[in-house]
Amino acid sequence: MAHKNVFAVVLSGCGVYDGAEIQESILVMYAIAKMGADYEVFAPDVLMHDVVNHLTKVKENGSRNVLTESARIARGKVRPLTEYKASAYSGIVFPGGFGVVKNLCTYAFDGVDCKVLPEVEKAIKETAKLGKPIGALCISPVLIAKVLGNVTITIGDNEATVADLEKLGGKHMLTTQTQVVVDPVNKIVTSPCYMLESTIDQIGDGAMNVVREMVKML
Amino acid sequence: MAHKNVFAVVLSGCGVYDGAEIQESILVMYAIAKMGADYEVFAPDVLMHDVVNHLTKVKENGSRNVLTESARIARGKVRPLTEYKASAYSGIVFPGGFGVVKNLCTYAFDGVDCKVLPEVEKAIKETAKLGKPIGALCISPVLIAKVLGNVTITIGDNEATVADLEKLGGKHMLTTQTQVVVDPVNKIVTSPCYMLESTIDQIGDGAMNVVREMVKML
Repeated sequence: MAHKNVFAVVLSGCGVYDGAEIQESILVMYAIAKMGADYEVFAPDVLMHDVVNHLTKVKENGSRNVLTESARIARGKVRPLTEYKASAYSGIVFPGGFGVVKNLCTYAFDGVDCKVLPEVEKAIKETAKLGKPIGALCISPVLIAKVLGNVTITIGDNEATVADLEKLGGKHMLTTQTQVVVDPVNKIVTSPCYMLESTIDQIGDGAMNVVREMVKML
Repeated sequence: MAHKNVFAVVLSGCGVYDGAEIQESILVMYAIAKMGADYEVFAPDVLMHDVVNHLTKVKENGSRNVLTESARIARGKVRPLTEYKASAYSGIVFPGGFGVVKNLCTYAFDGVDCKVLPEVEKAIKETAKLGKPIGALCISPVLIAKVLGNVTITIGDNEATVADLEKLGGKHMLTTQTQVVVDPVNKIVTSPCYMLESTIDQIGDGAMNVVREMVKML
């Protein structure tokens, strides 16, 4: 039987305003399966920075856990990111959502001086060290630039975000919906997804294009 | 410009164990967009029956609202189901998840004697009355059978569920993953999705097959 690729998907909660963007998360998992590969889902076992009412966009009382809420997207099959071993996977993918910049790192509050969760930093560095592909959708490329520095990526057309990316040592390439930017040296594949005004089928195409380029690198 | 079909998608929360099954929900929305149609998302503005920790499967303290949590899947763009008018849409689709049988009706507790939320019953009856297609994934066909009675549908291979469906007046047809059952008289399209052990790409194919048959009916 042929070797089957297995990708790690890292979630940051469940919902665009305080967690992982759900459409990007599901459509990345779907793209991986459509490409004939498997996936395993990881998330950090930490409290969410905040809980946002997605109807009113107002902060709610109460606290929720990133791993527990990510389990909603993964139908319970999610493991703490501390258990991720780069050697066991074909590559790693980060869907977007505010959870990336609130829960995986503090970019939403601290900009380029943000802190990154230790298990997130370790996962990115170890994957890069082994020369395995890293996919990043939407706002996630800012996390990759913070950890790895000199990478070529796309992150939409917001000027302030692009400027921050360049301060972190990244090189930005502007794309339209569904396009990807491939950094062949660092094996980074990025697509703007909801950093640009998009429809759900464009998100699906973007996710498929990212996973396709990652598979090509193997 | 050609008339564009617009389907209503009814969610029941956000997460398989206490709300809408997220993969089915997203992949139905994706299928609708891929078919060149638009969608609008609805959910009842009621408290969820319970909140289940999706990692441990244990009931949690606290309460959440079905409309507010459904907004996570819909990126905020969701309206109370009381605002649904069958005349304004091409058809209506119900993804699955325990939310369907805990929040839209009480089948999870009361079996065939379950009560259905008034706005859910009204939405199904009005859509059927206008002869517009109704799609139902996973466990949702039980809701359609409860409201409409004599319909031909598929709901997986669980014997007790199939028996209940028949008690409600429904006729059951067994299918495998991704297959659909079309009831041409009542314009009901169903697919088992996660009522059978499935992979995410099978869920995507099932959702696409349901939406394709619904579009054919227009």
